[in-house]
Amino acid sequence: MSSHRHKVPIYQLIATLIEERILSGHYKPGQRIPAIREVAAEFECNKLTVQKAFDRLNQRGLIEKVVGSGSYVKYPSKIHEPGGFYDFRTDYLAESFFPHKQAQRLINALFENEEKQLFVPPPTGGDTGLIQVLSQYYEVPAERMLIISGAQQGLDLVAKVFGTQLSESVLFEDPTYPGAITLFKARHFVPLEDDGPDKDQLDKQLNARIRLFYAIPSIHNPLGIEYSPEKKNIIADRALNHPFYIIEDDYLGELRNNNGNRFIDLCPERAIYIKSLSQTTVAGIRLGFMVVPEDLLDKFIYAKFSSDITSFVLLQKFVREFIKGGYYSAHLDMIKEKAARRKRQLIELADQFDFLTISCQQDGFNLWVQCSTSLDLPHVPWCRGEEFSFSNKYRSCFRLSYMHLDDKVFDQGLQYLKELWARIGE
Amino acid sequence: MSSHRHKVPIYQLIATLIEERILSGHYKPGQRIPAIREVAAEFECNKLTVQKAFDRLNQRGLIEKVVGSGSYVKYPSKIHEPGGFYDFRTDYLAESFFPHKQAQRLINALFENEEKQLFVPPPTGGDTGLIQVLSQYYEVPAERMLIISGAQQGLDLVAKVFGTQLSESVLFEDPTYPGAITLFKARHFVPLEDDGPDKDQLDKQLNARIRLFYAIPSIHNPLGIEYSPEKKNIIADRALNHPFYIIEDDYLGELRNNNGNRFIDLCPERAIYIKSLSQTTVAGIRLGFMVVPEDLLDKFIYAKFSSDITSFVLLQKFVREFIKGGYYSAHLDMIKEKAARRKRQLIELADQFDFLTISCQQDGFNLWVQCSTSLDLPHVPWCRGEEFSFSNKYRSCFRLSYMHLDDKVFDQGLQYLKELWARIGE
Repeated sequence: MSSHRHKVPIYQLIATLIEERILSGHYKPGQRIPAIREVAAEFECNKLTVQKAFDRLNQRGLIEKVVGSGSYVKYPSKIHEPGGFYDFRTDYLAESFFPHKQAQRLINALFENEEKQLFVPPPTGGDTGLIQVLSQYYEVPAERMLIISGAQQGLDLVAKVFGTQLSESVLFEDPTYPGAITLFKARHFVPLEDDGPDKDQLDKQLNARIRLFYAIPSIHNPLGIEYSPEKKNIIADRALNHPFYIIEDDYLGELRNNNGNRFIDLCPERAIYIKSLSQTTVAGIRLGFMVVPEDLLDKFIYAKFSSDITSFVLLQKFVREFIKGGYYSAHLDMIKEKAARRKRQLIELADQFDFLTISCQQDGFNLWVQCSTSLDLPHVPWCRGEEFSFSNKYRSCFRLSYMHLDDKVFDQGLQYLKELWARIGE
Repeated sequence: MSSHRHKVPIYQLIATLIEERILSGHYKPGQRIPAIREVAAEFECNKLTVQKAFDRLNQRGLIEKVVGSGSYVKYPSKIHEPGGFYDFRTDYLAESFFPHKQAQRLINALFENEEKQLFVPPPTGGDTGLIQVLSQYYEVPAERMLIISGAQQGLDLVAKVFGTQLSESVLFEDPTYPGAITLFKARHFVPLEDDGPDKDQLDKQLNARIRLFYAIPSIHNPLGIEYSPEKKNIIADRALNHPFYIIEDDYLGELRNNNGNRFIDLCPERAIYIKSLSQTTVAGIRLGFMVVPEDLLDKFIYAKFSSDITSFVLLQKFVREFIKGGYYSAHLDMIKEKAARRKRQLIELADQFDFLTISCQQDGFNLWVQCSTSLDLPHVPWCRGEEFSFSNKYRSCFRLSYMHLDDKVFDQGLQYLKELWARIGE
């Protein structure tokens, strides 16, 4: 087998790894990276190998050596450097916001109190205790709930339950979440207005083959808008009569209290509700849940079983305790306050540039920005409009995600944006 | 929403939950179950509700009340009671074998040493450190490895990568793992002999549509056999020339050192290697890995991403430390010894019954038993032959999994089998 191992030289692997750490912001501009001997110890390799990796990173302009002190991550020299340094692309929360110490305490308590059950697989549908807790917190019925390994798995299960030909049978919002476009190979779209889908376009698109409508009605990704109650009622009515199922992706519903006014409330027999818990805790918590119509429940359970049997039980129990103990609410309160502050700062900044327009009705962790001038830059620190839509209309837009940067870096990130926009405006 | 909640009365949910705990062996025959007030506290409900649940369990003969002491799990009154009490169906290891205290220490160390990275999603392919460790431990190339949430997800990814019509394009062993039959809707089979697939039948089945062969060549499930080197070479040859890919499910390869002699070694460009880590650690550890041919790697990574983005990072790091620290090896040594002892006891027992035959060339955590008399019992504590095969030939066989019972219960389980077989023999 040895001929198949290490085709890529080790120094290159190490260089790539360190580069990824820099781009992901784990090693920040101006920060000293671990010394050669530390890296050599980490990868159990020769110091010369690490030296070679460092040389490569030096050549690529990612780090610089300060004699007698070590190697430091370089500040981006050009403003259109890859966006990784100031990541306004990622819509997950910064990892540093998550209460790690509290998580550690809760996991230890689980080992003390439930040791014998910690590695016993729960039913495929999920840990009974977690289901009860989520049912109360989110005010959704426990009997039709299914724990999933994140919202992406929720979409994948929908694809499994409804079978092939999905690209013909799913109607999407325009714009929408790119993961859904890719997974379903989206072809049919209904344009969004400030209060939800364009009603006439919706009725036009609802042909006989449409069986599903994928919607992010609460805090839309990327638009940040919310469907009006009128639009929701119209769609619920069409779902019942056409009929079709609504895939209700409740992206960041926790930030607004919409309980009682969601599709899962308005037309539970037609709503496939998907809730990611990664978006509101931390990206590494790969967990979420679905609530599905009663007549589809068995099919979803079977699809979940054939996908991965069940989600990791210790993680389920941890999230149960995290919510039950009130830590989730406290975390969300802190996040909401931080998000409001950062949003205000960003809007104030954007207001200084005539070519930028931000609709004010936006919520969540993103700002959808319209830009009246050309954005023909090789690298940008945000997500371009075309990632969310095929239509030309959104080419001039971009999404700024403002909750992934650490507190320490956010102000530098603002400054970076200011310089970048100033250059564009020239 | 309230009209949709709690359609099932709470007392019934509680009764079901306790029944599941009894059937899963969490509450053992003869053991006192928690008092009504404790259960009421656990589910935050009324004591009368719990009383009602206990009444129901009493009626169903699952528990009995001992005045002044509490309620106890009843011993199965008839020998053909559901198999849950002495579970010889489940081929996962007993949870009590797993070193929980050590796991807790390793997780705490991760919180101390790598706190900032614990909830940062790794690349879709998996945590780089875990990949390195697995690559060394299993002697497989790291560059083509992919971390998955268990072997079932591995099969699911194969289904995704190769697309629809799998039931026409996959050849299976007869008998084989039921999860594979269900997932792929298996239709094409090649009978197994003591040293692997029947060569003539294999060549007969290899028509132009067959693109995959699903094999458990190392310690077969359920047969316990191993392919001979000759058979492996024949199959590797066919895989290269037909050509087709071999899905090599290395079910319990750790129990035999086959490194260098697996399909992933013999024909790496044609082997899709799947390794569950749940089978050799504990069922609740939903993790495993795949090694795939270079030309399929991107497709598998994409399939993994669209399934659930990435497996839970803390679990990946834990398994990395578990293997790296030598705890995995120590655990496996203990398991091997225990399995050998239990196997000996079971074979000795079966030898006392003329109608039972056990081929001696079996390894792993299961015994495949042939029974020359009728097994027309409503409930049996093992897996029936027909769960692994459509052919009549295996109707008279069953699989005894002997590593899921706790040490405390195993001897009782042996006694239970003895009584059951004595009754059958009458």
